[in-house]
Amino acid sequence: MGLHNLNYFHPVNSRISSIHPVYIELGSLAPAIEHLKAAGKVYTSVFFTVDEAVSGSFLNGYLGAYAESSPRLVMPGGESQKNTEGLERIWAFLIENHADRSSLLVNIGGGALCDVAGFAASTYMRGIDFIQVPTTLLAMVDASVGGKTAINAGGIKNPVGTFCMPAAVCIEPAFLETLPLPERKSGLAEMIKHGLIASSTHYESVIPFIENSQIPPTGLIRDSIAIKSAIVERDPTEKGERKLLNFGHTVGHGIESYLSTQPGLAVLHGEAVAAGMLAELYISVCEEGFVNAEAEQIYPVLLELAKNVRVSEEMIPGIIQCIKHDKKNLAQAIGISLLKATGKGVWSIYTDEIQLAGALRFMIQKQKEYV
Amino acid sequence: MGLHNLNYFHPVNSRISSIHPVYIELGSLAPAIEHLKAAGKVYTSVFFTVDEAVSGSFLNGYLGAYAESSPRLVMPGGESQKNTEGLERIWAFLIENHADRSSLLVNIGGGALCDVAGFAASTYMRGIDFIQVPTTLLAMVDASVGGKTAINAGGIKNPVGTFCMPAAVCIEPAFLETLPLPERKSGLAEMIKHGLIASSTHYESVIPFIENSQIPPTGLIRDSIAIKSAIVERDPTEKGERKLLNFGHTVGHGIESYLSTQPGLAVLHGEAVAAGMLAELYISVCEEGFVNAEAEQIYPVLLELAKNVRVSEEMIPGIIQCIKHDKKNLAQAIGISLLKATGKGVWSIYTDEIQLAGALRFMIQKQKEYV
Repeated sequence: MGLHNLNYFHPVNSRISSIHPVYIELGSLAPAIEHLKAAGKVYTSVFFTVDEAVSGSFLNGYLGAYAESSPRLVMPGGESQKNTEGLERIWAFLIENHADRSSLLVNIGGGALCDVAGFAASTYMRGIDFIQVPTTLLAMVDASVGGKTAINAGGIKNPVGTFCMPAAVCIEPAFLETLPLPERKSGLAEMIKHGLIASSTHYESVIPFIENSQIPPTGLIRDSIAIKSAIVERDPTEKGERKLLNFGHTVGHGIESYLSTQPGLAVLHGEAVAAGMLAELYISVCEEGFVNAEAEQIYPVLLELAKNVRVSEEMIPGIIQCIKHDKKNLAQAIGISLLKATGKGVWSIYTDEIQLAGALRFMIQKQKEYV
Repeated sequence: MGLHNLNYFHPVNSRISSIHPVYIELGSLAPAIEHLKAAGKVYTSVFFTVDEAVSGSFLNGYLGAYAESSPRLVMPGGESQKNTEGLERIWAFLIENHADRSSLLVNIGGGALCDVAGFAASTYMRGIDFIQVPTTLLAMVDASVGGKTAINAGGIKNPVGTFCMPAAVCIEPAFLETLPLPERKSGLAEMIKHGLIASSTHYESVIPFIENSQIPPTGLIRDSIAIKSAIVERDPTEKGERKLLNFGHTVGHGIESYLSTQPGLAVLHGEAVAAGMLAELYISVCEEGFVNAEAEQIYPVLLELAKNVRVSEEMIPGIIQCIKHDKKNLAQAIGISLLKATGKGVWSIYTDEIQLAGALRFMIQKQKEYV
């Protein structure tokens, strides 16, 4: 898919995505809600969940009159509330404030908050409308788009959740101005992934922003969302092509889950995915005919994104244990998505523990060389 | 809807319901799974949740070879596990046993177990297939059919859940042989409700079984399921007509929730619904032109079913508080379904606290007279 195929962006009713509206840089929430109402939605009341990491004057201006009129639940960001405890807090907040079947829940925060609050909305009274307002680069290009909600359970990342499209996603790059550097890198990793699986042009366009962890321009964020949306549109419930988006995630989720249990070693999602992409790119060279010389050009990009990921040889069995619990598996075969070339992914491949151990060893070796 | 319109029953691929297969009296689970496989389903593994109240030799015979080969989670029945704790137990059970996206979960138990385990299945890996095997009369004619799953939260009945059709429902009347008398009455109340909202013939047919809390014949159970299925088929996500099935439930849920917090006064779902139907029938007389002389014939039927419901005047404000948290409400108006005549319900009516208090006082008075 070339970027020249991406739909033209209109600021109010974005054509970026046909799976749900994506509004970019409206500056405030009200026009998005007005637009949904004009399209026929009737909302009796509006409620907010807000990530405690989000604050400052932009938020107040963004909420406008809703800041006064609508109940707000402030939640800790990150994974600490991405569980049944977080769900119960949100459900109780909605119940106490008499949210009904025609209420709207607006979730303002990072990927973890969007995931758990989207789950809560999709099950409250068996489903109310919700708007995702992602405030991290990662959530903008990934978690908020495409209608997957999730919580963690049993020590595993995202084993439960729902497929439920948000009523809309609002992208406000102004929220990114205060985003810490590692969070920027985490988002850039998913953008790189979109390039690797579907568009070499996009891959090349994102690279210049990595070294200094710069916020990419809005146009590039839009392009990343468009790549994801086009894939989701063709396969919303991940029977086939949507698995492409899991490139880097079989190994990445394993690393992320494993390191989250190791004091001081926890990493951000995108960092783990960068490390996972490195390992899975190596498997792509071995199994899918990805040209080795080209892979050698890509490894340093991924190594830069995965700089904080500290994995050592003796962790490999533990990481593989985590990988074996992944949703992408079937009858205990380990599912994985790979690359044939830059911009050309393949899905529904199955791998095994020996191959994964080899790829992890390769990744560790590459990290040692890259300092 | 007359009963003569109901589809002919075939023992294997039942035509009772077009929303999902309903298998009646297969005698064991295997033919149901075989039938689903023949229709194209592929299952990598089978798992069970079993209500601890279900035991005895019939269960073992019913499971057949699966008794040995498939992991089983025994859960307490009733409402104690119909919450996030119950969900987490089921999710952990599936994770530990490596259930994947093509696994099948079979839930054998009462309505509460079917509700929570259906919710767990509909969200595990964002949804795996599940079969409901209801073992109480109430669950057979109500909870297991129609694709609503739920848990309790915030002290409220069923505020969260999913719409998700089971792969199949298996009705085995043999499970009813050991069903306690109050449980039988609870199921008969929902069958009476199906008659009142949609078929006076069905209403008349169920009455003879109430006085001695007898198990009704399989044909009547089938007819009740057929009435519910036909309504659900026309309105699966309860935008309109499905609200009919809530007759008795606005007041009934309020009574059930309230009494569950009062030591020694908790009642079964169907008992509370019978009391709720009495109150809502009275409102139907006041508001919908239901003929009073006919209502006077129906009240004793409902009073017999609601014998265990002990509500007094001073509880009315507390019950109304519970009613105000109901899902059927909109912008704090209290939603209710009523009757125009026996077999003819109407939905999307709104009532208020004063009317509800009057109906509850009427109900209490009727109970005093009926001893």
